[in-house]
Amino acid sequence: MVVTLSVRFRDCDPMGHVNNAVYLTYFEIARTEFMRAALGEFALPFILAEATVSFRAPARFGDDLDVAVAVEHVGGKSWRFGYRITQRATALEVATGSSVQVAYDYAAGRTVAIPDPLRQALVAALVAPLPERL
Amino acid sequence: MVVTLSVRFRDCDPMGHVNNAVYLTYFEIARTEFMRAALGEFALPFILAEATVSFRAPARFGDDLDVAVAVEHVGGKSWRFGYRITQRATALEVATGSSVQVAYDYAAGRTVAIPDPLRQALVAALVAPLPERL
Amino acid sequence: MVVTLSVRFRDCDPMGHVNNAVYLTYFEIARTEFMRAALGEFALPFILAEATVSFRAPARFGDDLDVAVAVEHVGGKSWRFGYRITQRATALEVATGSSVQVAYDYAAGRTVAIPDPLRQALVAALVAPLPERL
Amino acid sequence: MVVTLSVRFRDCDPMGHVNNAVYLTYFEIARTEFMRAALGEFALPFILAEATVSFRAPARFGDDLDVAVAVEHVGGKSWRFGYRITQRATALEVATGSSVQVAYDYAAGRTVAIPDPLRQALVAALVAPLPERL
Repeated sequence: MVVTLSVRFRDCDPMGHVNNAVYLTYFEIARTEFMRAALGEFALPFILAEATVSFRAPARFGDDLDVAVAVEHVGGKSWRFGYRITQRATALEVATGSSVQVAYDYAAGRTVAIPDPLRQALVAALVAPLPERL
Repeated sequence: MVVTLSVRFRDCDPMGHVNNAVYLTYFEIARTEFMRAALGEFALPFILAEATVSFRAPARFGDDLDVAVAVEHVGGKSWRFGYRITQRATALEVATGSSVQVAYDYAAGRTVAIPDPLRQALVAALVAPLPERL
Repeated sequence: MVVTLSVRFRDCDPMGHVNNAVYLTYFEIARTEFMRAALGEFALPFILAEATVSFRAPARFGDDLDVAVAVEHVGGKSWRFGYRITQRATALEVATGSSVQVAYDYAAGRTVAIPDPLRQALVAALVAPLPERL
Repeated sequence: MVVTLSVRFRDCDPMGHVNNAVYLTYFEIARTEFMRAALGEFALPFILAEATVSFRAPARFGDDLDVAVAVEHVGGKSWRFGYRITQRATALEVATGSSVQVAYDYAAGRTVAIPDPLRQALVAALVAPLPERL
């Protein structure tokens, strides 16, 4: 799945380009869209365990960016999204990264096995077939 | 009440100074501290109706700012806070502004009369005596 | 001019809706688009003097919003934008507001008369004809 | 070096706790303080290459947090900061992470060897002696 967004002036810092923390927000935009498509509603039944970003090239105010999200791994309770942000006009790679989510039952206050239909949506979006376990 | 804060790098935009929207966040920091002092807990039983800012001088990364909050008006259901932000080192006035709050019962989903002890705390913090009505 | 944007999860606060300060960012998005259309580039040759917001109804994560910007007043050195934000799906009014800009020569470090072609673009976007002075 | 900060209401999202992207801002606050102490001024002569965060426990509005920053590696052109955020009141670990910086000459537009006195400050803050290379 690819989500397109416009860099806001407020996303940029005194260096003149998008502030590093904002890339996690861009990842979040793609992640929440993925979840909405998977679940049919805006629901985020997980906790975030880890996030990483590699900064490849600066993005600037006025840039349109494509944020691609894919599923890199699906485990019993957790899964990993991979992200790749490119400049829409030039396809220049701006940033890559990942995040690990753990399925969570907020009412019960504990981690749980990834529920269907989320698991099905995650497996369908795996970027390469996994040899085992699923 | 005066709250001191440090300008974060992230508060600043490509012009090199604090972004205009962040002043409403600075006001919010002072407002939430006022509410905590008034109510003895972090509770925000109101909706925000209006906010205004006058930008007097730029603030920059590394500045320490004093955000003063006072009560300018107390009505039956609503009240107005006034704000004044100054640079700690120089007392330079950076911004002034105001916000109007309406007491709200989130459980019931409707506006309500300002409850005690909030009303007492608001009246005690009025910057000038009101001639009537209270 | 109307700019459409999607509410980001990050725009929202623990009350579950768009944080008050973010409305100034939404105004800024429309303002910078107006400036780009007027000047043919991303340039912001002004300082912000004032901003106001009236909060009409909460906006939430996943909402698409239309941010309309118009010119309400054009003076010698300054002008006022008016803003109106509505929910795209329902036309519900979410917020209104305004901002006053003063033309500024950043190289010289002083306010200046509104330069052409900015003045022409501003006058062309006035929401009602002004009886005099222009 | 440890920097203490207060969680702002604006740092939190609809889940009721500090939004994941804000941890990179907290790291940045500690990083910029480290640089100021090392260089005697607010200067950021580097580009950020990578950042990682592990989320250990949620932080909430009103929490005071200690953000510790240390130097984990110093190379020819790049170095790695490690971060650890704990709740001031309880010492509960909230998040850990790292960032890799590459020394950069913004005037020349290219990466450079880490200049003194920055190198001296970095080596002095190494969390453990390195066996070689420096």
